[in-house]
Amino acid sequence: MEQKTYLTTRYSETGQDGIIHHSSFVVYLEVARVDFFQNLIGINISELEQQGTFCPVVELSIKYLKTVLFLDHLLIQTSLQNLSKVRFSLQYKVMRGDELVATATSSHCFLNSHFKPKRIPKPIFPLLLKCQDSL
Amino acid sequence: MEQKTYLTTRYSETGQDGIIHHSSFVVYLEVARVDFFQNLIGINISELEQQGTFCPVVELSIKYLKTVLFLDHLLIQTSLQNLSKVRFSLQYKVMRGDELVATATSSHCFLNSHFKPKRIPKPIFPLLLKCQDSL
Amino acid sequence: MEQKTYLTTRYSETGQDGIIHHSSFVVYLEVARVDFFQNLIGINISELEQQGTFCPVVELSIKYLKTVLFLDHLLIQTSLQNLSKVRFSLQYKVMRGDELVATATSSHCFLNSHFKPKRIPKPIFPLLLKCQDSL
Amino acid sequence: MEQKTYLTTRYSETGQDGIIHHSSFVVYLEVARVDFFQNLIGINISELEQQGTFCPVVELSIKYLKTVLFLDHLLIQTSLQNLSKVRFSLQYKVMRGDELVATATSSHCFLNSHFKPKRIPKPIFPLLLKCQDSL
Repeated sequence: MEQKTYLTTRYSETGQDGIIHHSSFVVYLEVARVDFFQNLIGINISELEQQGTFCPVVELSIKYLKTVLFLDHLLIQTSLQNLSKVRFSLQYKVMRGDELVATATSSHCFLNSHFKPKRIPKPIFPLLLKCQDSL
Repeated sequence: MEQKTYLTTRYSETGQDGIIHHSSFVVYLEVARVDFFQNLIGINISELEQQGTFCPVVELSIKYLKTVLFLDHLLIQTSLQNLSKVRFSLQYKVMRGDELVATATSSHCFLNSHFKPKRIPKPIFPLLLKCQDSL
Repeated sequence: MEQKTYLTTRYSETGQDGIIHHSSFVVYLEVARVDFFQNLIGINISELEQQGTFCPVVELSIKYLKTVLFLDHLLIQTSLQNLSKVRFSLQYKVMRGDELVATATSSHCFLNSHFKPKRIPKPIFPLLLKCQDSL
Repeated sequence: MEQKTYLTTRYSETGQDGIIHHSSFVVYLEVARVDFFQNLIGINISELEQQGTFCPVVELSIKYLKTVLFLDHLLIQTSLQNLSKVRFSLQYKVMRGDELVATATSSHCFLNSHFKPKRIPKPIFPLLLKCQDSL
């Protein structure tokens, strides 16, 4: 299962070299991850946090393959890459039309309201597992 | 009384037109405001928020007088402009050397933990008043 | 004539007080302004800049009326407010459903490739004038 | 040789989970990289770009080890990791006092004014080599 997220780059995301700043991709990936959570796992990040569960990024890796410009239309394809009892990782393909402009992976753990690590919450684990099975 | 805040512009704050993006100034003003609160009022915003008091921006106005570039050294001079029982406003001068590059004002109210407006908290009001008296 | 721009707030646009950071609205207004330029004036900002014409913000004023949250769906209504030979200003209404959450105005001039002020370029002036006439 | 960069986290860099947003670290690394370039290599990125040479990030990898909060004082230690004729990579340690809060690596190539890859420019290569020799 794969989540497709569409977005258009913003002027404020450019840098003085005339291309989209590399930090903007971190935001795009998060927009895609929120979509993945909401649509494939059925979880709203804000509700999760209100219940005292946080899901931070513990590792992030991005390969920038093509320069991306202001007003480019991007498609981000997000899917589960790995899953354990305490962590999961997502992989992302950032496309501009047929062109692959960036790839990325992010790893995530779960924290309680005191920011202490905990297992992937019971209702979430089988939902992530289902994403893995369908790979 | 006036708070002086020094900062250097960052690459990520530029835009494709080669100048510092106008939204970056909003961040600079906030850095200056945090300094003002900490140094002139003796209040740490995080502690205030942990006690259930929030102090959002309700109005913001900026005049951009000069283009500002990457690695420019800026000085922001922050002082109290107005004070009532429920609101206060700050004024900012953004300098690059002797040159005035932007001016701004921000107005603020106080909210309780349910985001409902409340009076300026008792310990804060006289501290703000002192800033006003010294104008 | 009015431009309607729809967007959904992003996680990265929140702050530790749990609401959308006030600087994010400056970005939303720019997204709306780009739409206004593209759809009502027929001008692509990047092309304009490549031709050596820049259109910076010289004044910006925002009133924050309601707290806005992560994943809120916003509509920004952008229209021309004022027009002279050298400047124009836009006004913005930021809506969340029926609720007005912020209002803003921005003023703009035109600069040549040396960042010196110039008149509103000939092909653009009548297009802006048309927006004014239709108010 | 190692570049030390000191910075204090900003309010606008927090997220609704109460910690510094992971995308902010990408900006901190760039601030450190600019310092590394300026102080250890003697190169001003803006001047390089004005001469038609761009030095984008082609790969970025960050491990987030500790949650970082608003007003935390960070030290970023930046050093050369790898060097070839066409690429170099930097490694970063982000410290809060004695505590290692994040590590990162970034890889960079050089582009000409048409954004085509080129070798590391002649004057820059020996300067980078010197950083490597001193490891």
